[in-house]
Amino acid sequence: MTDHSRALPRFEDIEAAAGRIAGQVRRTPVLRDETLDELAGCRLQFKCEHLQRVGAFKFRGATNAVLSLSDEEAGRGAVTQSSGNHGAAIALACRKRGIAATVVMPRSAPASKRENVLRYGARVIDCDTGQAARDAVTADVLRETGGTLIHPFNDARIIAGQGTATREFLQQLAEANQHIDTILAPVSGGGLLSGTALAAKSMQPDIRVIGAEPAQAADACESFRRGERITNVPIDTICDGLRATIGPLPFALLQRHCDDILLASEQQIIDAMRLLWTHLKQTVEPSSAVPLAVVLANPDAFADRNVGIILSGGNVDLDHLPWTANS
Amino acid sequence: MTDHSRALPRFEDIEAAAGRIAGQVRRTPVLRDETLDELAGCRLQFKCEHLQRVGAFKFRGATNAVLSLSDEEAGRGAVTQSSGNHGAAIALACRKRGIAATVVMPRSAPASKRENVLRYGARVIDCDTGQAARDAVTADVLRETGGTLIHPFNDARIIAGQGTATREFLQQLAEANQHIDTILAPVSGGGLLSGTALAAKSMQPDIRVIGAEPAQAADACESFRRGERITNVPIDTICDGLRATIGPLPFALLQRHCDDILLASEQQIIDAMRLLWTHLKQTVEPSSAVPLAVVLANPDAFADRNVGIILSGGNVDLDHLPWTANS
Repeated sequence: MTDHSRALPRFEDIEAAAGRIAGQVRRTPVLRDETLDELAGCRLQFKCEHLQRVGAFKFRGATNAVLSLSDEEAGRGAVTQSSGNHGAAIALACRKRGIAATVVMPRSAPASKRENVLRYGARVIDCDTGQAARDAVTADVLRETGGTLIHPFNDARIIAGQGTATREFLQQLAEANQHIDTILAPVSGGGLLSGTALAAKSMQPDIRVIGAEPAQAADACESFRRGERITNVPIDTICDGLRATIGPLPFALLQRHCDDILLASEQQIIDAMRLLWTHLKQTVEPSSAVPLAVVLANPDAFADRNVGIILSGGNVDLDHLPWTANS
Repeated sequence: MTDHSRALPRFEDIEAAAGRIAGQVRRTPVLRDETLDELAGCRLQFKCEHLQRVGAFKFRGATNAVLSLSDEEAGRGAVTQSSGNHGAAIALACRKRGIAATVVMPRSAPASKRENVLRYGARVIDCDTGQAARDAVTADVLRETGGTLIHPFNDARIIAGQGTATREFLQQLAEANQHIDTILAPVSGGGLLSGTALAAKSMQPDIRVIGAEPAQAADACESFRRGERITNVPIDTICDGLRATIGPLPFALLQRHCDDILLASEQQIIDAMRLLWTHLKQTVEPSSAVPLAVVLANPDAFADRNVGIILSGGNVDLDHLPWTANS
């Protein structure tokens, strides 16, 4: 039996995932804007995964993992720990397959996140704050149900699913006679960036793959530069989707396929988010703005390039926008 | 010489406009969202004209009108009065043709609107507030330059250009094997709605065409129901794109091709705008939310229907959102 937390996915797994999830996931549009190009000094193409179901690319990996379960495994249901977009994505993917989903979530998680998971019919199990409490409750649930754990990023099925966004992106560009020489994605646990890097380098070996990370959550950048996974970097960013630490499996892929990881400050991220709202007219969440922030903060690295950016998610609290005073 | 403020456009004019503006305007995407469908009790398809250049459908009509000028007319430049999206659209359309644009604008217009027009290289001429002062200054400019006046809606070239959005929308739906039985667009001066109605009824005679208007700016609805143009209806709406009064030429088309005009309250418009931001993840301006507000306010009229909605614009002040206290 494959250990999905150890076996590195290959490009064939992304191709297989694309076939498996077709019809379940949305083919999201690619957008661009001349004003942003002028500001950035390069040509930008945005792959709109915030317009994916549940409002994030996470639905691709979750759907691939859930559809990869055997009928016997599926009968016992899927289990995950995530208060964010992955939890909602697993919930919806399970509902679509008609199987049980259990999401272990700290009692302190915001009500909106809990509602999002419940809306798609998953069972929510409360736990205390902290990874140890979460792991203990998750182990109980797995024992009790015999269900399958689907980790948000340290899982080859998840990485392969996330990689389908880039496969689709490059296909859409080819259909439109467009071309990119650089692709950026945000990095947190690394599921999206490693899937992006694997897909991009397999399809277009000379492409440059750049991870984009908040300077105040720089564990992936630090790990990449030192050549070993560092997990004790302090994390304090408004990007609520980017607070996880890089996982071992994604890290191994990044070491092979990623060219660099660049950082952006909190203010640069907020400014980039506002530019995306103003000019691209997309309500993306802060995490989605990190790649544009990195491009604007490093003009020499991108001047006159054809740059692809994956907009990762659009789940944002409209009552607390980062540029509004007192929010 | 054709009087563009009197001759009713025909569907052939929309076809000709589509050919003329191809390559200049964006083919904007069509988006949908299952959560909005559930809330509305019908299947909604959104044509994203807020993703058009200058952030509004207005660029279609402006481009058609500017490209319709003879070389001799073009040499003397285009003139308009508009502090809103039409002014910016004329400015950019003229810059693209390489001709002069003059926009007459009240001194009281917000700085952001002025900057928007200046950014595209138009000349801005200040005038005092009020239509009489505006008309006097415009007449001076026309005399001085010999330029051509391009009215924002009471002009057959403008109406034909706006109608191309619906032509493209119905073509995109057909390509995707989708179908709508009802189409809604917001109404103000009536350029968009009359172009929408002409295109829709010409391409699909059994389609239902519904105008959507703020209850606090209900002159088009009132005019439509009484069968004569009423111009003294009080106007007090947050929809800054919908404060004009229905024009004679659009009104004549609406009487022939529109099935009804329905109203939404200010609160219904704000709620619908927030739903579009939350679920469709599009930063649309209040005017764009009126059709969805009308659908949600009249569930019986749309139950189980396949409904197309034109999202008209996305130019919104992110510092003053209507659901934020004290803004």
